[in-house]
Amino acid sequence: MTTPLPRVFLQHGRDRRVVEGHPWAYSNEIRMDAETKALPPGTVVTLHRVDGKPLGIGSFNPHALISFRLFDRDPRATIDEGFFVCRLRRALDLRRRFFDRPFYRVIHAEADALPGLIADLFGDVVVLQLNTAGMESLTPTLLAALDETLAPEAIVLRNDSRMRASEGLGSEVVVAKGQVGETIEVREGDLVFAADVVSGQKTGWYFDQRENRAVVSPLAAGGRMLVVFFFSGGFAVLAACRGAIEVVGLDSSEAALGLARRAAKINRVDDICQFRRADAFEELQRLAKTGERFQVVVADPPPFVKSRKELGSGLKGYRKLARLAATLVEPGGFLFVASCSHNVEPGPFAAEVVKGLAAAGRTGRIVRSAGAGPDHPIHTHLPETAYLKSLLVHVD
Amino acid sequence: MTTPLPRVFLQHGRDRRVVEGHPWAYSNEIRMDAETKALPPGTVVTLHRVDGKPLGIGSFNPHALISFRLFDRDPRATIDEGFFVCRLRRALDLRRRFFDRPFYRVIHAEADALPGLIADLFGDVVVLQLNTAGMESLTPTLLAALDETLAPEAIVLRNDSRMRASEGLGSEVVVAKGQVGETIEVREGDLVFAADVVSGQKTGWYFDQRENRAVVSPLAAGGRMLVVFFFSGGFAVLAACRGAIEVVGLDSSEAALGLARRAAKINRVDDICQFRRADAFEELQRLAKTGERFQVVVADPPPFVKSRKELGSGLKGYRKLARLAATLVEPGGFLFVASCSHNVEPGPFAAEVVKGLAAAGRTGRIVRSAGAGPDHPIHTHLPETAYLKSLLVHVD
Repeated sequence: MTTPLPRVFLQHGRDRRVVEGHPWAYSNEIRMDAETKALPPGTVVTLHRVDGKPLGIGSFNPHALISFRLFDRDPRATIDEGFFVCRLRRALDLRRRFFDRPFYRVIHAEADALPGLIADLFGDVVVLQLNTAGMESLTPTLLAALDETLAPEAIVLRNDSRMRASEGLGSEVVVAKGQVGETIEVREGDLVFAADVVSGQKTGWYFDQRENRAVVSPLAAGGRMLVVFFFSGGFAVLAACRGAIEVVGLDSSEAALGLARRAAKINRVDDICQFRRADAFEELQRLAKTGERFQVVVADPPPFVKSRKELGSGLKGYRKLARLAATLVEPGGFLFVASCSHNVEPGPFAAEVVKGLAAAGRTGRIVRSAGAGPDHPIHTHLPETAYLKSLLVHVD
Repeated sequence: MTTPLPRVFLQHGRDRRVVEGHPWAYSNEIRMDAETKALPPGTVVTLHRVDGKPLGIGSFNPHALISFRLFDRDPRATIDEGFFVCRLRRALDLRRRFFDRPFYRVIHAEADALPGLIADLFGDVVVLQLNTAGMESLTPTLLAALDETLAPEAIVLRNDSRMRASEGLGSEVVVAKGQVGETIEVREGDLVFAADVVSGQKTGWYFDQRENRAVVSPLAAGGRMLVVFFFSGGFAVLAACRGAIEVVGLDSSEAALGLARRAAKINRVDDICQFRRADAFEELQRLAKTGERFQVVVADPPPFVKSRKELGSGLKGYRKLARLAATLVEPGGFLFVASCSHNVEPGPFAAEVVKGLAAAGRTGRIVRSAGAGPDHPIHTHLPETAYLKSLLVHVD
């Protein structure tokens, strides 16, 4: 006989959302008696209705706003290596339907029924973000399951996301298995990029823009492209390889500059790509004044809105970016604007881009509206996890 | 000197929306004096603010709810063959960036700045829908411009859309140029389909689902696929060509049956495709009872919501369809549900699909949310023209 798990109770009448399929319970929905409050952050618990009816099994953190995160609706499920192996296999099955090579996000947290976990696959290297106390406490089990399913040569824990602070977790980067070089290869189609999985942004590569890159970058064939916020050079290098005659990239990060230049070199388009460090907004204004025009302008900024408080100013930021970028598009060219701010919904984002276009004195039509690729699925009851939004506009 | 165009005036304070970029003025926003009311439906007019300031040139129909539709913000523009040639060339430039072969929607009405006009290209054949009195009155000019830009062998006027009645126009189908056989070829990638451009649904082919077909149909490789509402066999035949071992199609239309079977035969997959006439909902229920399961279920129904009044019942229809379809998906398979109802927005549509999934006792994740392809652009100020919505769900 195993010891029964601690039981956590929802307050009266607060069970409906969870019953309908939502995977979270907030701290103010839970009966926070002394015993519950004393549970160590990350404890695996069963969740119950006031009358005792079990609703599922999950991780609990009494100090986090999202206190309970569901692992499974079956309260008798065992959260062991086998559990992780099942979830990983299901997630891998999905990705393998869409991608030939092992370069993608394997686990997208709640959408893959592993709350708090991000796992990106770079060939033989797995990069993890453990974003909740619950997932952190299960690290050894998770690592064992990864060995069983993927047998990676190296595993990196990028435990330096902003989200961890709200769970009371520290910030650290650990190579938990094997060794990882300063940069590792990312293969997308016939191209090779360089990712810094240890100290680069997020897990080191933005797999989420893969489909957008594949659609947008070839539109620059025969012309010039401008990439504002080029990160590791994904949009830029692909455009150069697909026939752009010149690609200009702007980013304020020295690290990005190194990675993008390296990617251009590996793919033998360093004569076409011109990456430079610059304040994006200032440089856009300067380029507009000099009368430069591009067949395609890609504006893929870091999140402007990191909390609900910043929503107003952030939305204005997208409008301004769209206005400055639209000015630089030659007639008949394309403007691509993306937002990865969780707090910005697709409707308001599109409205700001359209206002920016009008403020630039330009007209056009929306050719495509898209989110992230299929390796970033969306939880059925957390539509807000569709954080990536993008618009492709054909500009007159 | 040419005779000045009739002038139509907006009521006081009603100009803001048009100034900001919206291409319509409604009848209750226009100063409907006797002279204005007497203008023949479809007259080309200039639109003005109360103080006389011109806002643009467009077509006017005093009897339609959308009385004014903008052609150009320059009131001095001439709406002649040259005007249509410019618009057609711009629209063609856009399509040729995305498609190698001349099979796509060339003109998507307002989004291509030709309000009231739909033009689909089937190789040497152009199929038009003239949906407003304004566009109808310009037919000869439009046909001349089509000859100049595309020089098609045949032009079909599919003037039998529902929208024409609201413009006071009759219903007719006319071959305006050349000759058109009973069915004509549609080429999508390496496949050939058969379209009935004279009496088939809409213009005879659903170009809008091309990208969705390309993503969804290959997912049935190695398994069985069910297509509910198969129309001309697009999803089904592509799946069979991409490795599905059996494809079952349901549709209530005898004409669809003929076209789909023909497409299967042309592409040599008639041994894999099994099309049958059936009431979709009844047949889904029957299949569920017999325990049949499919790797992929595609539910691509005709519009359930044709007016705002039908919104409630229509949304329930999508939920029911999703529920019945989800039941038939094998674990690890995919459910694809689409809606082409203009009055259903993406959020409520997704909510109903998710409820249907839950009602079937299934869980899953949203892998892709997509509209129509780039040959169906969206007007920047008419987000409601993004009529096609679809969700791809990975079902547990």
